Amino acid sequence: MSEPDSIRKRRLREFLDRVWSAGEGDAADEYLAESYTIHNDPGDPWEGRTLSREGFRERLTASRAAAPDQKFDPVRMVESGDTIAVAWRWSGTHTGPAPGLPPPTGRALAMTGATFYFFDGDDRLTGHWQIADRLGIYRQITG
Amino acid sequence: MSEPDSIRKRRLREFLDRVWSAGEGDAADEYLAESYTIHNDPGDPWEGRTLSREGFRERLTASRAAAPDQKFDPVRMVESGDTIAVAWRWSGTHTGPAPGLPPPTGRALAMTGATFYFFDGDDRLTGHWQIADRLGIYRQITG
Repeated sequence: MSEPDSIRKRRLREFLDRVWSAGEGDAADEYLAESYTIHNDPGDPWEGRTLSREGFRERLTASRAAAPDQKFDPVRMVESGDTIAVAWRWSGTHTGPAPGLPPPTGRALAMTGATFYFFDGDDRLTGHWQIADRLGIYRQITG
Repeated sequence: MSEPDSIRKRRLREFLDRVWSAGEGDAADEYLAESYTIHNDPGDPWEGRTLSREGFRERLTASRAAAPDQKFDPVRMVESGDTIAVAWRWSGTHTGPAPGLPPPTGRALAMTGATFYFFDGDDRLTGHWQIADRLGIYRQITG
């Protein structure tokens, strides 16, 4: 059942590794279209907005601050048309501040989530539709 | 960009409409394989279990009790190989009991979620990997 990654799957794995896990903000430009729309992402302060590449980097920096050692592991990828749906696991250590969260607890955190990533004809990302297990994180931090 | 639904997409829409939205427990047998595995579903008491068709109906009845008028609306479907990933919106009125929730509030609730559904060679469902915005529901009920 296993087949080699498509160009878009390979690029998406790189984007998750380099940009979201490693925090290489400059690398984001290699993967993003001119604008990036956050179609659905409950709890994300940027939900509903369309960001420039600079705006995306600001969101990246702010979003990664709570757990700078964070890692996204794709567990499934389903590609069709202009979309790749990714089921993922996330882990990180709560060592920094973030909007809506209590001060850093130093706790090891983990959650799952799913993101539908949208591509343009140049294999660049134009936005996403996302859901994450925010309640799981909330309980790990406050419980 | 719009194309007709595949057999599996059509069957999945029917399954969501008839089984999850309308609560037709007997109809589930038309869509399920002999066993159904819940691979990931944070907050679901059946997470990690493999259910018989009877076990699935028990989960259906218990899960729908909190909001019997509930409705699932698929907003995107991405199909490849044995999988269809669905991004969905859910709405319902909190009129019944459910594990882990306070007593019925009568409130109108809404959330989004994503489910990766897995099929066998007979186009029957063998399980899912799911994530839902539980924190959104929790806040709508307790806020």
